Amino acid sequence: MKALLFDKELKFVTDYPKPVPQKNEALIKVTHAGICNTDVEITRGYMGFKGICGHEFLGIVEDVNAQDKSLVGKRVTGEINLGCGNCPDCYNNMQRHCQNRQTLGIYKKDGIFAEYVTLPIENIVEIPDNVPDSDAILIEPLAAALEILEQVHIKPADKIAVLGDGKLGILISLVLSTTPANLITIGKHENKLDILRKQGIKTKFLQNATETKYYDIVVDATGSVDGFDKAVSLVKPRGIFVLKSTVAAEKPMNLAPIVIDEITIVGSRCGQFRPALRLLEKKVLDLKPLISKTFDFDNALEAFNYAQEKGVLKVVLKF
Amino acid sequence: MKALLFDKELKFVTDYPKPVPQKNEALIKVTHAGICNTDVEITRGYMGFKGICGHEFLGIVEDVNAQDKSLVGKRVTGEINLGCGNCPDCYNNMQRHCQNRQTLGIYKKDGIFAEYVTLPIENIVEIPDNVPDSDAILIEPLAAALEILEQVHIKPADKIAVLGDGKLGILISLVLSTTPANLITIGKHENKLDILRKQGIKTKFLQNATETKYYDIVVDATGSVDGFDKAVSLVKPRGIFVLKSTVAAEKPMNLAPIVIDEITIVGSRCGQFRPALRLLEKKVLDLKPLISKTFDFDNALEAFNYAQEKGVLKVVLKF
Repeated sequence: MKALLFDKELKFVTDYPKPVPQKNEALIKVTHAGICNTDVEITRGYMGFKGICGHEFLGIVEDVNAQDKSLVGKRVTGEINLGCGNCPDCYNNMQRHCQNRQTLGIYKKDGIFAEYVTLPIENIVEIPDNVPDSDAILIEPLAAALEILEQVHIKPADKIAVLGDGKLGILISLVLSTTPANLITIGKHENKLDILRKQGIKTKFLQNATETKYYDIVVDATGSVDGFDKAVSLVKPRGIFVLKSTVAAEKPMNLAPIVIDEITIVGSRCGQFRPALRLLEKKVLDLKPLISKTFDFDNALEAFNYAQEKGVLKVVLKF
Repeated sequence: MKALLFDKELKFVTDYPKPVPQKNEALIKVTHAGICNTDVEITRGYMGFKGICGHEFLGIVEDVNAQDKSLVGKRVTGEINLGCGNCPDCYNNMQRHCQNRQTLGIYKKDGIFAEYVTLPIENIVEIPDNVPDSDAILIEPLAAALEILEQVHIKPADKIAVLGDGKLGILISLVLSTTPANLITIGKHENKLDILRKQGIKTKFLQNATETKYYDIVVDATGSVDGFDKAVSLVKPRGIFVLKSTVAAEKPMNLAPIVIDEITIVGSRCGQFRPALRLLEKKVLDLKPLISKTFDFDNALEAFNYAQEKGVLKVVLKF
């Protein structure tokens, strides 16, 4: 089958063996894939991953290696963390923190930039008919944005700043705009902030965000090491700083302000897909402006380069 | 009056002007002072402070500039943060986070290494008769240890590790030992860990603490930049890392593990004195082993040097 492989460099191959579903796994024919910043980071060495990358996808179930074949033919996506199934984290529906987990296209498990992928049945999530492909392909980053609501009690009177107007910053802003909190998004790009303004969200340019110790909650979704210090300066004493940026780079940091102002830093990563689907079914968020361009999978390498260009949001591959 | 001044270097002077209490302030004759690591940090440039340092004290009220003179003659100590009195933080009894605060002997306010000090009446806390001087002089660091219980919900089944067996690490361990949580203190010093073992607290040498992602809550009280990475490795995914070390040094850090394991970092600093006094009145903690030596105030410079020697815990000055 065709696949986009990373092994020191990114290669498009046509002769990769089609995976075989093991017991209680499904074989899925991939129909759509999204390119994530994590995929780009992987090509720069993140997690030391080798193999088929990619983890945002939609597909049709082609076969199930189990007695119950009811998933065959369904339009689905899949949770990306594969737990060991036999530890306290897995028992508590926290496969995404299982210490022996594999992560689709990120860690020890081939991803979805390929014609076929296998996944355990328990990871598979059916897409409701009223959720179009263009929304559903964003379910993984949308779930990551929703994870903030899972971890932090957002109060109606909170003042919240989201730092960063990339894909994740925009999704987080949209998710937080479903609460009555007083929200502003701070970014650098007129065209990206405009997506939010059109949905009623206040925005501000980074160079104008000179306020200090002002917000109850600050979310850093800049994906940059500089976001850390800016977030610390924006959050008020005893406030909450949600750290969403996984950056491979190391940066010298002064921890004293975190102690002196008793700031709480909440590291936040993947979320669950079902709450994200419920939000998509409500049709309250317009996600269309997030998709910059769709490429045919045969042009995956070109798409990968395009995804790294300035100003580009989500790039989708169609199979 | 006699005073220990810091201005580029530490000097013992005898001709410092006696302070005059302003409206609603008390004049206190200092009887005991404790030397804190923060005082040592100040002599290394922390907070850019100049003046009389010191903030841990006991004294007798000599005069009050107010109609109500009932405090005169009382044995007291004082909260070290002086709020502006006119902001939301001050209204919420959070003077310690007021953005216009002064901090006794640390920021914009002369401290207590001197024969006399003035403080607003609202900062003054009377010491109950059944609390001896040797316990009361530790109230400020004890309140800082108790601040953890103010900020973090400690659950009965939690596994907690305290990293660091210095003064603050010991006080934090003692405070946490009042809860039913499963506590261990990880340190480097046989004699210091022994203080805790004698009060029924489990301990472990740092080099034997090879467990990873194990504790629900890890408190870093090492006062060292290296404590940060160790705490991150000890805490389990979705766990809480209480950061107590204010270190002036900067250190390159990789933030990715905080995001990937969704760790919550809680910066923690000063606490309130009244809860600490209530704990002292209960007589459940033996704080005597924490006091290494008492010096006459005239020998304050010698005491300051002694306080920085290896293995020394609290050094007290007697006036």
